Amino acid sequence: MSGIVVQNIPRAASEVIDGLAACGVATVHEAQGRTGLLASYMRPIYPGARIAGSAVTISAPPGDNWMVHVAIEQIQAGDILLLAPTSPCDDGYFGDLLATSAQARGCLGLVIDAGVRDVRDLTEMRFPVWSKAIYAQGTVKNTLGSVNVPVVCANQLVNPGDVIVADDDGVCVVRREDAETVLSAARAREANEGEKRAKLAAGVLGLDMYNMRVPLAKAGLVYVDTLEED
Amino acid sequence: MSGIVVQNIPRAASEVIDGLAACGVATVHEAQGRTGLLASYMRPIYPGARIAGSAVTISAPPGDNWMVHVAIEQIQAGDILLLAPTSPCDDGYFGDLLATSAQARGCLGLVIDAGVRDVRDLTEMRFPVWSKAIYAQGTVKNTLGSVNVPVVCANQLVNPGDVIVADDDGVCVVRREDAETVLSAARAREANEGEKRAKLAAGVLGLDMYNMRVPLAKAGLVYVDTLEED
Amino acid sequence: MSGIVVQNIPRAASEVIDGLAACGVATVHEAQGRTGLLASYMRPIYPGARIAGSAVTISAPPGDNWMVHVAIEQIQAGDILLLAPTSPCDDGYFGDLLATSAQARGCLGLVIDAGVRDVRDLTEMRFPVWSKAIYAQGTVKNTLGSVNVPVVCANQLVNPGDVIVADDDGVCVVRREDAETVLSAARAREANEGEKRAKLAAGVLGLDMYNMRVPLAKAGLVYVDTLEED
Amino acid sequence: MSGIVVQNIPRAASEVIDGLAACGVATVHEAQGRTGLLASYMRPIYPGARIAGSAVTISAPPGDNWMVHVAIEQIQAGDILLLAPTSPCDDGYFGDLLATSAQARGCLGLVIDAGVRDVRDLTEMRFPVWSKAIYAQGTVKNTLGSVNVPVVCANQLVNPGDVIVADDDGVCVVRREDAETVLSAARAREANEGEKRAKLAAGVLGLDMYNMRVPLAKAGLVYVDTLEED
Amino acid sequence: MSGIVVQNIPRAASEVIDGLAACGVATVHEAQGRTGLLASYMRPIYPGARIAGSAVTISAPPGDNWMVHVAIEQIQAGDILLLAPTSPCDDGYFGDLLATSAQARGCLGLVIDAGVRDVRDLTEMRFPVWSKAIYAQGTVKNTLGSVNVPVVCANQLVNPGDVIVADDDGVCVVRREDAETVLSAARAREANEGEKRAKLAAGVLGLDMYNMRVPLAKAGLVYVDTLEED
Amino acid sequence: MSGIVVQNIPRAASEVIDGLAACGVATVHEAQGRTGLLASYMRPIYPGARIAGSAVTISAPPGDNWMVHVAIEQIQAGDILLLAPTSPCDDGYFGDLLATSAQARGCLGLVIDAGVRDVRDLTEMRFPVWSKAIYAQGTVKNTLGSVNVPVVCANQLVNPGDVIVADDDGVCVVRREDAETVLSAARAREANEGEKRAKLAAGVLGLDMYNMRVPLAKAGLVYVDTLEED
Repeated sequence: MSGIVVQNIPRAASEVIDGLAACGVATVHEAQGRTGLLASYMRPIYPGARIAGSAVTISAPPGDNWMVHVAIEQIQAGDILLLAPTSPCDDGYFGDLLATSAQARGCLGLVIDAGVRDVRDLTEMRFPVWSKAIYAQGTVKNTLGSVNVPVVCANQLVNPGDVIVADDDGVCVVRREDAETVLSAARAREANEGEKRAKLAAGVLGLDMYNMRVPLAKAGLVYVDTLEED
Repeated sequence: MSGIVVQNIPRAASEVIDGLAACGVATVHEAQGRTGLLASYMRPIYPGARIAGSAVTISAPPGDNWMVHVAIEQIQAGDILLLAPTSPCDDGYFGDLLATSAQARGCLGLVIDAGVRDVRDLTEMRFPVWSKAIYAQGTVKNTLGSVNVPVVCANQLVNPGDVIVADDDGVCVVRREDAETVLSAARAREANEGEKRAKLAAGVLGLDMYNMRVPLAKAGLVYVDTLEED
Repeated sequence: MSGIVVQNIPRAASEVIDGLAACGVATVHEAQGRTGLLASYMRPIYPGARIAGSAVTISAPPGDNWMVHVAIEQIQAGDILLLAPTSPCDDGYFGDLLATSAQARGCLGLVIDAGVRDVRDLTEMRFPVWSKAIYAQGTVKNTLGSVNVPVVCANQLVNPGDVIVADDDGVCVVRREDAETVLSAARAREANEGEKRAKLAAGVLGLDMYNMRVPLAKAGLVYVDTLEED
Repeated sequence: MSGIVVQNIPRAASEVIDGLAACGVATVHEAQGRTGLLASYMRPIYPGARIAGSAVTISAPPGDNWMVHVAIEQIQAGDILLLAPTSPCDDGYFGDLLATSAQARGCLGLVIDAGVRDVRDLTEMRFPVWSKAIYAQGTVKNTLGSVNVPVVCANQLVNPGDVIVADDDGVCVVRREDAETVLSAARAREANEGEKRAKLAAGVLGLDMYNMRVPLAKAGLVYVDTLEED
Repeated sequence: MSGIVVQNIPRAASEVIDGLAACGVATVHEAQGRTGLLASYMRPIYPGARIAGSAVTISAPPGDNWMVHVAIEQIQAGDILLLAPTSPCDDGYFGDLLATSAQARGCLGLVIDAGVRDVRDLTEMRFPVWSKAIYAQGTVKNTLGSVNVPVVCANQLVNPGDVIVADDDGVCVVRREDAETVLSAARAREANEGEKRAKLAAGVLGLDMYNMRVPLAKAGLVYVDTLEED
Repeated sequence: MSGIVVQNIPRAASEVIDGLAACGVATVHEAQGRTGLLASYMRPIYPGARIAGSAVTISAPPGDNWMVHVAIEQIQAGDILLLAPTSPCDDGYFGDLLATSAQARGCLGLVIDAGVRDVRDLTEMRFPVWSKAIYAQGTVKNTLGSVNVPVVCANQLVNPGDVIVADDDGVCVVRREDAETVLSAARAREANEGEKRAKLAAGVLGLDMYNMRVPLAKAGLVYVDTLEED
């Protein structure tokens, strides 16, 4: 089942992808029904990056980055590399040379459920990475994996060509075929949020804005002046 | 036992609270006998913030942030929200809308033994958060918790109105009724530290400044030139 | 076996040490055959520092920093303090006063398989620390440990006088007696990397640059157009 | 604040304590409104023990078990020792000699948010322990803590004299003053459970027994024959 | 996307499922190309159980076990319940009452990426559970999830009707449509293993039995008498 | 530095090794000055085993068990295999076939800072294993490591031929050249313990037996009747 490179993967329209990037992880995740978040241990190597792109997926053996080289050839401009090891591993599969190569082909960043290294160089290059670890441990090039097959990465299923959205809040996957619908929902949500934010900033309470007082009372919420000690 | 909102909580004097903020977590913790530190996994979302305020406490069910809205109404200027889930949870209970609302009421920041999201926005707003996780996972609004009851947060008991001190070193709780005494001890310690720092910077050794050589010798410390191999 | 201070330790030549600092952790680690990395949980308190120095080692009981004071007297300019607790501990053994004292003696930084505190001050002082935790928890001064004995720190053996290299990728130890050889290998690797980087930036694929296509085919790699669904 | 031994603590009535033991952790926890559980990392050293007793609490420095000796003198028949370190520590504070001494005074077991050792001996003695770790690492006897003061243990506040219930599901604390009420609620719950269990064993569905079908439908639950693929 | 119950799921033939149970996790995992293992933190509540069955999947909100009741109605004899929370949660979703109900419908066991409770009762009932935690924390019944939809559980994709194999080594998922092929491969492997085991027990070395000496030498393995010290 | 097999390693005398096994981990660890314990995450796959033997060490790449086959040839009766991966890995390097082979050569057990599988079979064979994980994930045989070189395993340095002591409390390493001295100290300690145990069982307090009352009072311990509330 490993040893396969799929060369032709479908991708979402670039304007849809760009729209999702602008919305960001939290909004996109809400817009698609609170699904798609990768595990919270996936953290950016530097703050401030916000990207979206089509996933070029890599399934790789523990401690073996041979398939990263294979995957880079499959990159189109606007893609994001996403690597899931076949068993848990923190090794540094990826560093500045691979980033140089990926960036030269238009890759926007890397999402890796393992380690990354050369993070000072990657930061200077503005090549963002979301990883489980920062670890300089080197890898070998002995065993095949696959490229552009479905993978489970940080507890989420990712298909090649799915849209990956990543920012300081983490990483979210959007099914390619749902991307346009999710973008609409995300934008509706955002429009909505601007108005809410203005009200809240003006001192209106969420309790009133969302009409929570009646349901809270029905649920049994009791207001007391002070807490009686026994 | 849940479903209670205590509306009237005692608070320490604001000049005492501000004094504790200026001293910072490490000094305050030492000044009160090395007690009060929340667990070390409580980390700030951005570096450099140093605050102190009165705790408005929230006991919330896992994955349910209804009580945050209730708590915001109870905030007075200078307060800090502090949320403890009733079972361990990393969900993102709090984001930029809630921060806008809390900030509008004078809230100085959030301490949460769970997740937070929209951290890029929160950073731009300079609304500091100390959390267990950064995670965009959304929450529901179905189940009651309580506001301004005693909670255990990150392995420390916090009563409503206790003083929370937070900076890059983490978070420390000071009992409201001890706040003034702790401030005095902290200031004494600080005065003391300036003098020590100057001596140490000038090359005086701690061994001499603290008169450690005799007790070390008594304890059996032996100086050798080189380590003999067996 | 504890209670010993070794006063005379061998050190590598300063130009060798400086050379290793310039190469950085990932390169040095590769150059010595992918060995010597401390565990990936050892993280810098601020980004951007890159140092190398001779290890002054400390073996300390849990929650007891008496030996740090003893160790500081043993520091020579260009040294790095490295502390390993005798059982796992996250307490804050080290803060700004100790850093002031260490810096006054020429210490370049601290590597500690435990906690550190006063990180805002340490950041302002540009005294870099790689630690397992940031935690303000104070320590006592009751029990002896040892200084300049071999220790296991974050899963690596470190002898006093070994060269410690540390940067944003983590921490690597180089045996003192191997330092010169490792530096040569690291420099060769670096020279090599410049050329590779230029090619990759120009769009040459690693697949071609490293002649991977034949071995990949031999290993059984198959390219397909699309993934057939069952 | 440390260095105190409280010699006279209130205890719940022994028949109440025995009743809580018979109910077990899960039932007692539910009966008091889903509160009081210690963290899930507190695990028994052998399966099958189910005990309840009055807490003799110990606040101890990391790696220092001096206070355990002090606490044993305070034990009355039917008590349970409960130790919380003042900072996280896995050291083995307790082994077969201390267990022999505690058992001789009528102690029923130990709950420790740290390590335990000699577990083979403890198992043979049928002295049950719930701990965070099994670790032979020895401790020192240098620094005071306190006995019979309120402590936070594995994320729960425990007062001296509170009732500790422990079994294969973990550990639950019941406030001494609530013990009788909680026992009544737990027994009511148990009576109730026998009947429910019989129905469920006979094939009645919870959906029907708890009348869930209408609220599920109202909440929007949809039954479909097969999952349509997009 | 939540709030769906799929009532009609395909299942593998029972003799295939029974065959997989007999082979066990390690063999089945190897037979399907080293894929399908759930994360190693999924541990059995008691040793010795070895089962296989068709997955009835549950996607449930954190701390809410409403869907477990819904799922039990969908169980056929020989099924295994498999629950994945929509965000990480250790709460005890499942205890002896639910087990009684599930067992009455022919359920063989539970695989849950969360907590379980009443483990003493479950052990006595011989109802095996593989879980992430043992934790008595109760749950609510407020929010919908789904039953018999694809879920990611402990880092593996599981479709309803996939075959779950579980024993002391952990849990492995086999795609329903591959079950027969995997069984053949597993049996071939087992036949093979008996012969190998006999040889190894007789003292034949794996080095010789697998003809490893030549490839090891080619890879550069060097035998030396003693390790020269530098 | 990898790719080496050392064939001739020194071993301690078998009667010394057997003596250390009889003493057990906690006693041996104390007898050698509280040193030598492997990390507490190293747990036995079944309770009750207590062994000691000479370490045949394996340094292995992540996910590659080729060197285990090489190591088995180096085993002499009474040896214990000890494997340390070169980067953290939970894969199942070892199962029942390898255990059969090792046992045929007189191997007493395995200590592995990684995963093990076939634990039901290993339990039936009474081949004890102390491991970081139980995980069926298979490994490859592509990359060399070394056999009988010094390794750091679970945070302890282990030299080939060092004595490994393992029981329900964990694993302890004793330097080969210190084994006899440590055994004497351990036996002295044990003799001592029998007498202490008898006194404690008879109700003598540790406070009196160890003459702790005076030093406790000197350290400032205060006995109070009840805890005054503020």
